[in-house]
Amino acid sequence: MRPTIAWEEDVIVMIDQRRLPREEIYLRCRDHLEVAAAIRDMAIRGAPAIGIAAAMAVALGMKRHAGQDVGGRERAYAAIHDVLAETRPTAVNLFWALERMRRRFAETRSAPKDALDDTLRREALAIEAEDLDACRRMGELGAALVPERARILTHCNAGGLATAGHGTALGVVRSAARLGKVRMVFADETRPFLQGARLTAWELLRDGIPTTVITDGMAGHFMARGEIDLVVVGADRIAMNGDVANKIGTYSLAVLAREHGLPFFVVAPTSTFDPETPNGSGIPIEERPQDEVLRFAGTSIAPEGALARHPAFDVTPHRLVTAVICERGVARPPFAASLSALLRKEGA
Amino acid sequence: MRPTIAWEEDVIVMIDQRRLPREEIYLRCRDHLEVAAAIRDMAIRGAPAIGIAAAMAVALGMKRHAGQDVGGRERAYAAIHDVLAETRPTAVNLFWALERMRRRFAETRSAPKDALDDTLRREALAIEAEDLDACRRMGELGAALVPERARILTHCNAGGLATAGHGTALGVVRSAARLGKVRMVFADETRPFLQGARLTAWELLRDGIPTTVITDGMAGHFMARGEIDLVVVGADRIAMNGDVANKIGTYSLAVLAREHGLPFFVVAPTSTFDPETPNGSGIPIEERPQDEVLRFAGTSIAPEGALARHPAFDVTPHRLVTAVICERGVARPPFAASLSALLRKEGA
Repeated sequence: MRPTIAWEEDVIVMIDQRRLPREEIYLRCRDHLEVAAAIRDMAIRGAPAIGIAAAMAVALGMKRHAGQDVGGRERAYAAIHDVLAETRPTAVNLFWALERMRRRFAETRSAPKDALDDTLRREALAIEAEDLDACRRMGELGAALVPERARILTHCNAGGLATAGHGTALGVVRSAARLGKVRMVFADETRPFLQGARLTAWELLRDGIPTTVITDGMAGHFMARGEIDLVVVGADRIAMNGDVANKIGTYSLAVLAREHGLPFFVVAPTSTFDPETPNGSGIPIEERPQDEVLRFAGTSIAPEGALARHPAFDVTPHRLVTAVICERGVARPPFAASLSALLRKEGA
Repeated sequence: MRPTIAWEEDVIVMIDQRRLPREEIYLRCRDHLEVAAAIRDMAIRGAPAIGIAAAMAVALGMKRHAGQDVGGRERAYAAIHDVLAETRPTAVNLFWALERMRRRFAETRSAPKDALDDTLRREALAIEAEDLDACRRMGELGAALVPERARILTHCNAGGLATAGHGTALGVVRSAARLGKVRMVFADETRPFLQGARLTAWELLRDGIPTTVITDGMAGHFMARGEIDLVVVGADRIAMNGDVANKIGTYSLAVLAREHGLPFFVVAPTSTFDPETPNGSGIPIEERPQDEVLRFAGTSIAPEGALARHPAFDVTPHRLVTAVICERGVARPPFAASLSALLRKEGA
């Protein structure tokens, strides 16, 4: 499998996740506007992957303006930043990556053209490389928490496709599978975009990990029957009290996991922690077009005139979270203390 | 709207619910085998509607054999009964209706041909007429429990299409709407067959009742935000302790309703009560083909080789049920007492 996203000369190449699993088509983005459109329209999705794409887009976008004076560079930078910042509001990794790029730009905005280009490009590639390392480390830390012969439920796609590779929740699944611990993965299909049925099943089958697709309404039934041992999900933003924003449907799973006494693990790099957000009520929830719920693959599934709602994420309160697994360690309640401690800790 | 199912001379006519809302096509079943196929393949669905269809199919099927002697009639009857009994295992109304028909047949198996035909046909039509009456009565009883400006969540389709008309859960919605009490109905789309998006939204919009389609993973989110006031669902079988089998996904909703302190009402005629089943563990759960989950609106949504599970129903334990509304009254906990009392009560 080629990487989720790659910088190739003056083009950012990414697999079009809307076409999977039926077609493996790669988008070639030639400027930051094409990357912004790819993020907004969900050709690329997943909080870490969005952050990497935005960082690469900044570096690519600035190449055309690096020949200008400092004032011109600053105006260009602000415009590029704003276009990317407006693509999707919930995943904080986007803003975290943009902030890293902004600091590098601030340091080198007066540097010669080649030095500016090189610095921004290196920073974007560093964000990508660090994400892959973080996923591998989270995979190891999480796999240690997975019991033998585990039947693991996951939601949406927190996999290689949502990151630089390996994945967050699916990184734990992959690492646990290498230890021979995974009996079955239950993949919520995850309406409306079906990331579970399309992407998670595709990734895991390629790695030979047994995967059963279920509809989003089935999780409670299988938990009640004793067919699920734990739940592992990713995150789009984690508030400092441990409240977790993730794909719509996650909150229901967390309530069900608690009802059945099952561990509910959230796997996300520290770039997903939001030091500015004390609790989940401060996390903006993206409302996407109604039509994404009312249609599928060009087919209308509801009568003319039906209304729909499409919040893309929900917030799971920290009291339902067993642990947050990040690249620097495993945070347990009380999260207000444990998450801050991990955030202060030096990166691995 | 024409009735869900109708007897027209020697044909049983039913709307093909698989084609809604895009096409209004009526199936014309000329014998009991065509009705059995329509039930099995879900052209007609909904526990009460299945019972009515099966009763009509018995009466229609026996017309060809009423000219035989008693032994021939009995053999024909057994064969017709068995084909229908094997269509779908969970909804008890099917077996209840078949049992009513069997009693009528036992009484009249030696009668002249016309008398036998007439008796069976009258019994089937009585089952249909009683169901419509029951739905109207449940609607009134349930509407009294609905608060003003209610935002009601429902699952699957427990509507006119699932009954002789008016509906069970949607009968309550309709009756409450006539009292001006319904602010919004949230209709779970209800994967994999999308009965909520396709059928519930279609029915309610025709009646001018505002309806918002949501995916099955969204219910918890809207409850947490205070946007839902109560949950109303139908049932396929109710055990004598109050455990309720209903469309897969119902159990998750019941857990979420309890978590948010919302009433969870089950609306079903007494024909849905199963005196033979003391609790939910005795209810057979139909497992349908994997392909019904792996395909969406005719399109494959998962990679080749993915597994799936498709339990068509789940069981909600009685402790999560606020009340069972049937045509003879409203049963509240402890259900072991209240359901039995209603079952013993004379029909309205």
